[in-house]
Amino acid sequence: MEKLPKIFNQFQNEIDNEMKSIISENNFPLYDMLKYHMGWIDENKNPGNFSKGKFLRATLCMLAYVSTGNNYKKALPAAAAIELIHNFSLIHDDIQDNDIQRRHRPTIWYLWGKSQAINAGTAMKVLANLAVLRLKNFKISNAKQIEIFKILNESCLKMLEGQYLDIDYEDKFDVNPEDYIIMIEKKTASLIEGAILIGATLNLNLEKIASFKKFGNFLGIAFQIRDDILGIWGSEDKTGKPFASDIKKKKKSLPIVIALNQSPADIKQDLKKIYASKNISDDNVRKILDYLNIVNAKELCEEKCKFYYNLAINEIKNLPIKKKYINSYKEISEFLIKRDF
Amino acid sequence: MEKLPKIFNQFQNEIDNEMKSIISENNFPLYDMLKYHMGWIDENKNPGNFSKGKFLRATLCMLAYVSTGNNYKKALPAAAAIELIHNFSLIHDDIQDNDIQRRHRPTIWYLWGKSQAINAGTAMKVLANLAVLRLKNFKISNAKQIEIFKILNESCLKMLEGQYLDIDYEDKFDVNPEDYIIMIEKKTASLIEGAILIGATLNLNLEKIASFKKFGNFLGIAFQIRDDILGIWGSEDKTGKPFASDIKKKKKSLPIVIALNQSPADIKQDLKKIYASKNISDDNVRKILDYLNIVNAKELCEEKCKFYYNLAINEIKNLPIKKKYINSYKEISEFLIKRDF
Repeated sequence: MEKLPKIFNQFQNEIDNEMKSIISENNFPLYDMLKYHMGWIDENKNPGNFSKGKFLRATLCMLAYVSTGNNYKKALPAAAAIELIHNFSLIHDDIQDNDIQRRHRPTIWYLWGKSQAINAGTAMKVLANLAVLRLKNFKISNAKQIEIFKILNESCLKMLEGQYLDIDYEDKFDVNPEDYIIMIEKKTASLIEGAILIGATLNLNLEKIASFKKFGNFLGIAFQIRDDILGIWGSEDKTGKPFASDIKKKKKSLPIVIALNQSPADIKQDLKKIYASKNISDDNVRKILDYLNIVNAKELCEEKCKFYYNLAINEIKNLPIKKKYINSYKEISEFLIKRDF
Repeated sequence: MEKLPKIFNQFQNEIDNEMKSIISENNFPLYDMLKYHMGWIDENKNPGNFSKGKFLRATLCMLAYVSTGNNYKKALPAAAAIELIHNFSLIHDDIQDNDIQRRHRPTIWYLWGKSQAINAGTAMKVLANLAVLRLKNFKISNAKQIEIFKILNESCLKMLEGQYLDIDYEDKFDVNPEDYIIMIEKKTASLIEGAILIGATLNLNLEKIASFKKFGNFLGIAFQIRDDILGIWGSEDKTGKPFASDIKKKKKSLPIVIALNQSPADIKQDLKKIYASKNISDDNVRKILDYLNIVNAKELCEEKCKFYYNLAINEIKNLPIKKKYINSYKEISEFLIKRDF
């Protein structure tokens, strides 16, 4: 699936502008790294229009907002805040994973060094917090601002717990599918859930948002499983990430977890041996790809992805949303499990 | 000066307990790194009572609060929040500076690796944000919570700008005293100022806090200059930092800035040559110490420190505080410029 559903295009420019306005309030060289990362300037500060993210989290936040209320502009600061949190996590992630490329361009740490990249990521996180205060300009009450602030930081904390596990699992061989789900619920689903909760919370009372939480959780899990599939079998051109990158990084992504748990004993043994070595050679990457084939890892991942997708789809009927938006929820869910970028 | 003024002892345990309660709300291995850093457990999770910080920022926050209002307990979550921000910055700082020791113990990154230490630092920062919400338990209004939240994040952002400059200056030789002051105002004074502002803001309206801002700024600058003196001539036993550590890290601390700007031409030349090399050898450290002597760098730093100390002391009379606390402000200021740890 090559094309973004139209709900993405609807808000993309305004989300981008809101983030620009948040970051550009501060004129100082630290923020050039952030502007570079967001695709607004090149490494020499020349303006340009470089590859950007999909703004998935911000778009989900906007969708949750417009499907439960009016005047979408009110939600822009909150949508920008959650997208900035996501981008802060990418900046630190690239440092932690030693990734030299992101969205087809060199990563911040690769250009400015890891020390400054740590500062850049944290600054992005602080700006996300300050972005919440911009809701005041739209007469969003203090009480609501505090609720948003709480969801934003709690989701972020869960995400960090997930990042902890993701790294912790790199040196473990006994990761089972349940461990894996715990990890991605924290690492990925928490922020996707948070994005939807924030959009809904701006309009609704706390007791009305339980179904959004469930929907976001299922969608986030399905999204990450699709990401895991792309992290091994995805096209470099489309994802912007090197071929089989998750294997080289020793990530315990779902295909690998399946192989480690379901392979015949001799293959299991060999897999553990390969993962115990310091680096994974290209020969061993090919070997692992063969092993994944033997257990049908790709198909099993697709099934699992479909399973959580179905749970998400089933939850849509419970969402207290305007009927005309039901299709947007379906479209975005379908895109997330079929995308190849 | 070996002893902390009594205002430190007054709140130390309760600040420590408040931070413990904030961090321990979350039971997950990620937080063990934070508990280790705070001196509550050893690296194997055994409880203990290890070397802690002075809680300077939290204490300043408490002082600003009690000197303008009643029931000091109300201010504890805010004081804990600012102290957690400081500690997050230490965790990332140690990664950036490759420091293997902090408060006489191995640093987080040295034990858990840099990737997990990045997560630990960021988690500490998120917990600081969430700590602000605990003010609600003391019936602090939403509006005040938002004000505190704003000061906390704005101070943190300024601090990150300072961290950026601190690292940026490492490879520069043309740092003049004005550049230096800009750097430490951001890196250090912003959080000290923030601590005092937060304490005062809990009791007073915005228009009444200008003098606290000034006082905090002057005090913060004096504090950092004293830190720079200790970073070169301090005793390892007392500071917990290796001898002349700032020189080895190529920090453009005030003594070095003075030497680079005021030395005779031939020494200037040699200094630049030494700082241009990848590492500074022990021989060159001794050479630099001699050069610092030639320009009386230590005395000049002490004068500069005294200058800002005097500005802070003069500002005390403008603070809208209860008279009986004037002495505490004086004591804490004096301690900060005379301390040897």
